[in-house]
Amino acid sequence: MFQDLVKKSRSYRRFYEEKEITMEQLKQLVELARLSPSGANRQPLKYVLSASREKNKEIFDTLAWAGYLKDWDGPIEGERPSAYIIMLRDKSISKAMSIDEGICAQSMFLGASDLGFGGCFIGAINKPKLMKVLDLGEEYEIALVIALGYPKEEVVLETLNTNEDIKYYRDEEGVHHVPKRSLKDLIVQYLDN
Amino acid sequence: MFQDLVKKSRSYRRFYEEKEITMEQLKQLVELARLSPSGANRQPLKYVLSASREKNKEIFDTLAWAGYLKDWDGPIEGERPSAYIIMLRDKSISKAMSIDEGICAQSMFLGASDLGFGGCFIGAINKPKLMKVLDLGEEYEIALVIALGYPKEEVVLETLNTNEDIKYYRDEEGVHHVPKRSLKDLIVQYLDN
Repeated sequence: MFQDLVKKSRSYRRFYEEKEITMEQLKQLVELARLSPSGANRQPLKYVLSASREKNKEIFDTLAWAGYLKDWDGPIEGERPSAYIIMLRDKSISKAMSIDEGICAQSMFLGASDLGFGGCFIGAINKPKLMKVLDLGEEYEIALVIALGYPKEEVVLETLNTNEDIKYYRDEEGVHHVPKRSLKDLIVQYLDN
Repeated sequence: MFQDLVKKSRSYRRFYEEKEITMEQLKQLVELARLSPSGANRQPLKYVLSASREKNKEIFDTLAWAGYLKDWDGPIEGERPSAYIIMLRDKSISKAMSIDEGICAQSMFLGASDLGFGGCFIGAINKPKLMKVLDLGEEYEIALVIALGYPKEEVVLETLNTNEDIKYYRDEEGVHHVPKRSLKDLIVQYLDN
């Protein structure tokens, strides 16, 4: 059932790093992005795929993890992502952020869950540094990094009461809790006959 | 298979308007958005759901359809959407466009296909007019309209050669063609061992 796929597609930040994700799997994910709708059909997004140990390390060093976990610097060696998809804006097609970024990101994210692994969207990127690591031309701008791997942590959704704090947290057993607003708080009007 | 769901989730603009979409189905779609990841877990998006004939008409009058089809003013009566989800930014939570918009939009869009209907993301909105139609408070900003219905048209994907025109078009039989860039054109680097 599709809802189960959405439910299990959580943001994971600790992985079985030794479990490989293949270039073929990464291409399957980009194919899902390719098949997704695009604003005015412009399709301004391009991708870099990394399943290289060496490059993964360099990419990792440009990322900041889990802003709300102040006493955690991100996954330790051995628990880091096995692969990355770096989403780029091709500025020769479109300069501004577009709705496409989230659309394509979510298609790939759900696709990763469907293939049995998981990931995390990372927006806190040292972009100039990552531009250098990837030796990208000026026509590109980094939009998002999708870190991918086989999850090595448990993530649990909690229901948030109105106006409670939205910060996620990790409990003493290392379980990651994510408070989600209730459906009641999300729907502001029902217009029915 | 998840790829089949993505493949069949095309942008449809003509519907069997008489086929109803229920409030329960619309709520199921918002539940998918609710379960989707959110940047810094802020969850700034709120929703208005319409399955009301009368309100649908008023919402329709604020929308512009299919910019590239110059000789088409949008669906005629009887082929219009059966329901709408209007996505709002709650400015008291976050003012700017965020990646959440596309993420949540795509979760709902795929969910609509999974439930057997379809839709179209519409960004060309007379926002002041729609704000009035919905009588929305100043804390909200309209992000996107998702038009929903049971598709009454065929949509076919075509593969685009590099630098060809991305404009979608409708052929003499009324089939809607959408040129998509090739995977080769989307992936700019493969970093493998």
